[in-house]
Amino acid sequence: MRLKKVPYAKEFLEQQSNVYFLQDEPLKIDGIENYGQIEVEIGCGKGDFILSKAEMHPQTHFFAVEKFDSVLIRAVEKNLERTKPLDNVTFILGDAEHLPHLFSPQSLDVIYLNFSDPWPKTRHAKRRLTYDSKLSLYEEKLKKSGHLEMKTDNQGLFEYSIQSFANNGWYYNELSLDLYAADSFQNIKAHQTEYEKRFLSKGQRIYYLAVEKRK
Amino acid sequence: MRLKKVPYAKEFLEQQSNVYFLQDEPLKIDGIENYGQIEVEIGCGKGDFILSKAEMHPQTHFFAVEKFDSVLIRAVEKNLERTKPLDNVTFILGDAEHLPHLFSPQSLDVIYLNFSDPWPKTRHAKRRLTYDSKLSLYEEKLKKSGHLEMKTDNQGLFEYSIQSFANNGWYYNELSLDLYAADSFQNIKAHQTEYEKRFLSKGQRIYYLAVEKRK
Repeated sequence: MRLKKVPYAKEFLEQQSNVYFLQDEPLKIDGIENYGQIEVEIGCGKGDFILSKAEMHPQTHFFAVEKFDSVLIRAVEKNLERTKPLDNVTFILGDAEHLPHLFSPQSLDVIYLNFSDPWPKTRHAKRRLTYDSKLSLYEEKLKKSGHLEMKTDNQGLFEYSIQSFANNGWYYNELSLDLYAADSFQNIKAHQTEYEKRFLSKGQRIYYLAVEKRK
Repeated sequence: MRLKKVPYAKEFLEQQSNVYFLQDEPLKIDGIENYGQIEVEIGCGKGDFILSKAEMHPQTHFFAVEKFDSVLIRAVEKNLERTKPLDNVTFILGDAEHLPHLFSPQSLDVIYLNFSDPWPKTRHAKRRLTYDSKLSLYEEKLKKSGHLEMKTDNQGLFEYSIQSFANNGWYYNELSLDLYAADSFQNIKAHQTEYEKRFLSKGQRIYYLAVEKRK
């Protein structure tokens, strides 16, 4: 992502009651025990996807995790710009390496990975959000009935991820090698990220998969 | 495949010593116990792939299975047209439903599925060569160290097959969503089927995967 630094981002985010800062210790989120369905997007960018989801599903609570404060602030602002800001979204500023400190085991219904950083170099494979150790973490945090959905335009990341999920014993529920050429998947196509809108306008393929941990 | 009927095909094939007819009983192949490495292409078409393989690997014995006699005859003829016909290829005329009667358990090193019939309708899924019961059969016939390779231009068949292998506990060794756009896979691209050559000339994507049964 080309990142335009927002100098006041951190200060602004600190003043918001629906923003938490994830660091190297377990993060306590007020009232989380009262949430029913919980869904999380890891790498929410400027928030288009998660805000669209939250608007359509008011009974579900959504967490939007993003590592860059200058990006997360745009998602928070977009929500505040609404006539009635959504109260079923919580924003988390934090890096993927600190994800173990977010959420209790078996607490999540759905995890979304949308247009994650592909980290194309082999020596950076460990940083990909579908690396083995990350999948173990998702398995731990998801409810037994939970699942994970991934969208990307990046062929290399998708090739890697297909194999990673399979080789770590995840079960495929759905897979598309050209999401927008398919007649089905209407509910998936209904919620688009900023990247997705841009790539679509260029005619690029979007890849999609939905998996759950083999019981 | 558009099939041009060859009226004398069956009679011609019956006269060849390197052609067997697979039917509804175990097929005994002379001398197979003396073969070391055994590789099989299910659906060999007109034989370009398997003859290319056999030429490059004279120490390996190849089996070319095809259900249409009017197609298989072209593969047999291509071999006979060579200055020195290859003696490490055996041709099998037979339908996929009779595959259980071909080969002993744990006798194969590699199975190739190249540009198989996609059977796009859901009600025909059982006929696909990557349907659950077929994967069980491949698992039975492959050596413990064996693996399977698949190439196709058909997006729907590849989407289905990715999930089928994963959900039946196969392990991915390699996967490409655009074989000929990749720098690697030179040894895979070295052996092309008739379909592959045609699709490549049209600029179509070729998908590829290599899997083995999880130990």
